[in-house]
Amino acid sequence: MLYTEIPTQRPVTPLLDQINDPEQLRQFASSQLVQVANELRQYILYAVGKSGGHFGANLGVVELTIALHYCLNTPLDRLIWDVGHQAYPHKILTGRREQMTTIRSKRGLAAFPTRDESVFDTFGVGHSSTAISAAVGMALARRYQKKPCEVVAVVGDGAMTAGMAFEAMNDAVAHQADIMVILNDNDMSISCSTGGFAKHLAGIWQQGQFVNIDLNGEPVLEPYPDWEYRSRLHQPATQATDNLFKAIGFEYYGPFDGHDLEQMVRVFNAVKQRKGPRLIHVYTKKGKGFSAAEADPIKYHAIAKVSQTVTTQPLIVPKTAPKYSDVFGQWLCDEAKRDTRLLAITPAMCEGSGMVQFAKTYPERFFDVAIAEQHALTLAAGMACEGIKPVVAIYSTFLQRGYDQLIHDIALQNLDVTFGIDRAGLVGEDGPTHAGVYDYAYMRTIPNLVLMAPKDENECRQMLHTAYHYAGPAAVRYPRGSGLGVVIEEELTLLEIGRAEVVLHIKAKSDEQITILAFGSRVAPAMQAAQHIFEHLDVSVCVVNMRYIKPLDHQLIDSCSDQTHLFVTVEEHAVMGGAGSAVNEYMAQANIVKPIINLGLSDHFLEHAEHSQMLQDVGLDAIGIAHSVERSWHKLMQLIL
Amino acid sequence: MLYTEIPTQRPVTPLLDQINDPEQLRQFASSQLVQVANELRQYILYAVGKSGGHFGANLGVVELTIALHYCLNTPLDRLIWDVGHQAYPHKILTGRREQMTTIRSKRGLAAFPTRDESVFDTFGVGHSSTAISAAVGMALARRYQKKPCEVVAVVGDGAMTAGMAFEAMNDAVAHQADIMVILNDNDMSISCSTGGFAKHLAGIWQQGQFVNIDLNGEPVLEPYPDWEYRSRLHQPATQATDNLFKAIGFEYYGPFDGHDLEQMVRVFNAVKQRKGPRLIHVYTKKGKGFSAAEADPIKYHAIAKVSQTVTTQPLIVPKTAPKYSDVFGQWLCDEAKRDTRLLAITPAMCEGSGMVQFAKTYPERFFDVAIAEQHALTLAAGMACEGIKPVVAIYSTFLQRGYDQLIHDIALQNLDVTFGIDRAGLVGEDGPTHAGVYDYAYMRTIPNLVLMAPKDENECRQMLHTAYHYAGPAAVRYPRGSGLGVVIEEELTLLEIGRAEVVLHIKAKSDEQITILAFGSRVAPAMQAAQHIFEHLDVSVCVVNMRYIKPLDHQLIDSCSDQTHLFVTVEEHAVMGGAGSAVNEYMAQANIVKPIINLGLSDHFLEHAEHSQMLQDVGLDAIGIAHSVERSWHKLMQLIL
Repeated sequence: MLYTEIPTQRPVTPLLDQINDPEQLRQFASSQLVQVANELRQYILYAVGKSGGHFGANLGVVELTIALHYCLNTPLDRLIWDVGHQAYPHKILTGRREQMTTIRSKRGLAAFPTRDESVFDTFGVGHSSTAISAAVGMALARRYQKKPCEVVAVVGDGAMTAGMAFEAMNDAVAHQADIMVILNDNDMSISCSTGGFAKHLAGIWQQGQFVNIDLNGEPVLEPYPDWEYRSRLHQPATQATDNLFKAIGFEYYGPFDGHDLEQMVRVFNAVKQRKGPRLIHVYTKKGKGFSAAEADPIKYHAIAKVSQTVTTQPLIVPKTAPKYSDVFGQWLCDEAKRDTRLLAITPAMCEGSGMVQFAKTYPERFFDVAIAEQHALTLAAGMACEGIKPVVAIYSTFLQRGYDQLIHDIALQNLDVTFGIDRAGLVGEDGPTHAGVYDYAYMRTIPNLVLMAPKDENECRQMLHTAYHYAGPAAVRYPRGSGLGVVIEEELTLLEIGRAEVVLHIKAKSDEQITILAFGSRVAPAMQAAQHIFEHLDVSVCVVNMRYIKPLDHQLIDSCSDQTHLFVTVEEHAVMGGAGSAVNEYMAQANIVKPIINLGLSDHFLEHAEHSQMLQDVGLDAIGIAHSVERSWHKLMQLIL
Repeated sequence: MLYTEIPTQRPVTPLLDQINDPEQLRQFASSQLVQVANELRQYILYAVGKSGGHFGANLGVVELTIALHYCLNTPLDRLIWDVGHQAYPHKILTGRREQMTTIRSKRGLAAFPTRDESVFDTFGVGHSSTAISAAVGMALARRYQKKPCEVVAVVGDGAMTAGMAFEAMNDAVAHQADIMVILNDNDMSISCSTGGFAKHLAGIWQQGQFVNIDLNGEPVLEPYPDWEYRSRLHQPATQATDNLFKAIGFEYYGPFDGHDLEQMVRVFNAVKQRKGPRLIHVYTKKGKGFSAAEADPIKYHAIAKVSQTVTTQPLIVPKTAPKYSDVFGQWLCDEAKRDTRLLAITPAMCEGSGMVQFAKTYPERFFDVAIAEQHALTLAAGMACEGIKPVVAIYSTFLQRGYDQLIHDIALQNLDVTFGIDRAGLVGEDGPTHAGVYDYAYMRTIPNLVLMAPKDENECRQMLHTAYHYAGPAAVRYPRGSGLGVVIEEELTLLEIGRAEVVLHIKAKSDEQITILAFGSRVAPAMQAAQHIFEHLDVSVCVVNMRYIKPLDHQLIDSCSDQTHLFVTVEEHAVMGGAGSAVNEYMAQANIVKPIINLGLSDHFLEHAEHSQMLQDVGLDAIGIAHSVERSWHKLMQLIL
């Protein structure tokens, strides 16, 4: 069934409605599964249309999910979804069908599998390539406990390039862990897959290298004469005479058609009977069953909510202010035009990081290295050693994967690498796995690094330019989503390194002053808060756009410390170790003994919700900042009196 | 030549003495290279005997190093040594022969290749598995610049298991980088290699799978009838019909005898003439040419200085206090005896982490996962999901490699994983690549974590016990080297979570008090400093063993804040984001407006030197602490007056 429209009315799903637990699915005859799949696919179209969310990957694993829950004794058997973009069918089949329209909204279902949400979510995911490690851990634990069960990790081909998947396969063989890895090969991560591994899979595919399952001397399956999808290969294939999985020591079965339910059931039931590390290679189509998504799976990786009118085109709300990602992308093109030494690197986030135009204009200067953050950073280090000026575009949360490389390969050698750190701060609907709220802490402790955060999209552009021209490692950290709608100067202007700016100074008649040192996205709300504070407390309020987390502008703090009675720091980052903490350190060092409050995120992982809602909930919007400052002022006055 | 003694007199090395630049090596006839190798090996024995340092790996690559510099046009061709344990022959051949006896000592040669030290050191190393990424970066840079050169990465088989090596190979194929990877296979990392990859190499080895180099229709080499080293395989082999490197898209050549100079020269000259990603697989013997090291390569990974008397046994200085690693190892055995749920994990550091006894006693509960820090952590997470209580032993500097997994897989899910973080603080001779001085900062910003640092080896034991019994992620961070020599209580006692202890209170007649909040290794010197401060300033001095970096003991700070006139924090960690910074944050939050100074490491990477020397240089020994506090006190008094 190929659907062309996203239904706005709940589809009729008589079989699906009977499944509140996979045990009920397992009661169906295998001949009924195709109808279950049709209903499930229609229901996903409807539910994601209602809620917005990940789309193509979920449509692609409808049959796979049904077959797995049909063959496994979940939740006693352990099923782990890598990344979790593809877990909607799993959520629907495991008792969460009617909550699906709440997904990614406050107090609704999480975007990814989460242990707190369901016993069927055996391992919380979000970042890629963790599932095999977790599966090995579970399998070894169960063996030691003498309580064996099936442990199955479903991993996309895109996620297989990340080093930790390889580390896990290496160890699975070492300890002969009883795991089944389902390699869900759709020739894509969010972008197209890239690299030797993708070529290898393409080679297996093209040559029809086929490994059957032999049970008691009987082959389980017939090899295929031809592959439906062969034409959509993105990768030139390499010779597939050598099988990587067999080389590392896995039993390899495949490739199979991941949309053929009957076959999947036979395969899983057969491979279940074997032990040790096994890999089943299945082909699926991202966006399967929805015409527009099959045609453009990158665009349909995720969709926004669908409007009331029926349409195959999800509604895109027009925005006047550009996204920070696009500001980065435009700057990258402009800087590249001026300086031929610039090469740009992304770990599989070309679209998300706003690099499509750059990749098109400068294909020989654009390097998508696949999901491989560690390599991305050390690759940049190697380039910098040869006089290149590499720019690495990376999300804050994924830079955590390259932390050692940042310290050991880049900062320690003081190499000239520029970072565009996207999705910094709270990220809204993706939830705590994707929050970029630790980067100030983990970066500012590293010597040699320069770290900036812009107050708006124009400053972002100028900071990127400044970071690029700084002869050492320098990073600009900017939020998810759109700017403030300010004018973006085409001209590129260097900012002075380590220099903050006073952006607002409201003077009251009294001598008392509150000075707010604001970082990045919190400068604008701090300015609004200042007005409120001035009106309610009748004190002078000075707001500083700190610009630099490192090096901090000591001179500015010195210059305003005499007239300041209360310092406030505010940032969209954990208070612990954050930018405010850097201010505290300087005040200690400079013997500035003044009251100070650090506003930021408290020491908890925050559940998903709309970004502005989250900021309001944690008191980091304008009114929240104003109230915190006013409360502190009153407390302070009481202490003094 | 098989040597049995480490010479204490400089050996006679007439050929070697002529080589101050590899260009001079290249003037020799290839028939002279065997003599160069003999002289070089003897000289290494002599030099390492003098200085102490890495041993086995260097003896193993004597021929390989000579052949590489002979065939490559270094430094114009780029030669990158992965990890760098094996770079002594390289240093000797590149103009640093006469400085070799200074290696690892203050202002002497660095333990590893370092860009600042020589143009021949094209990339600074220390941590494993970075070389292929750097090589790809250099090769792509050179191609873009239209200045091609040979780029060669020498990588041990142990380092190949780390995910980033795989990420780099994947990308090398994607971008068809012109690199040569020399896989220096000695069937070991520091410990024996482990995992599917090692089995695979063993399979290639055992079956004599041989890929020749064909130049103009002529095979360059004869296949071997037999392998000298076949008997020393640690790994059971897997079927080697599939070649992993060819599968990923590399040209594969090998396996070759890495001690056969003539052959190495022919191989390198032949493979140089090809393009794209190529891998040359050579076998070498760790410790080659020195009898004791060949027999026990784990023990001879590194050696201490040799005493005046000639001996094959390096002098081991007897220590009365046990090493922290051994305290960890003993605790691990004791706790395992009490609790069958305990399983222990190491990323290839069984010996270094003090786990030999545990591995022997509980082989089925011991998991060496190879050099694979990312996997090590998520493996633990998977185990914890099944009710196991995993203990991960890891060095502070290597935990940087598993940072995302710590946040995303363990802390976010609040899983019950215990960490023994070894080599925390400055590490002395290994230098800045191995310093463990950022862990407070990068860990304390993570919610759900408990983080402790012991004042001595007995507290270390009790803290490990406490961390283990805490039902969530908890870490104990302890230094390299030996404890203070205190009595270690066999009984295991739980410490209260988040509770500090006053360890010294010297009362002066005056009302004035300095309170020193000391963390981990700095408690003992702070206590010594207190006496000095009391005598010089005539103020009361209170010293607190803070024990917990997170959660911090707020109550204790509250309770002593009234009588305190100056707070001092002291830690063996970067000041930026460190434990002192946590104290500052609490003081801000609690409206404690008092002078405070944060003592720790300033914002620089520190060069190698002896550990106690480094502490003295940065003012973190007892006298340094005392002087800092006294200076601050005088400054403070001036401000008040």
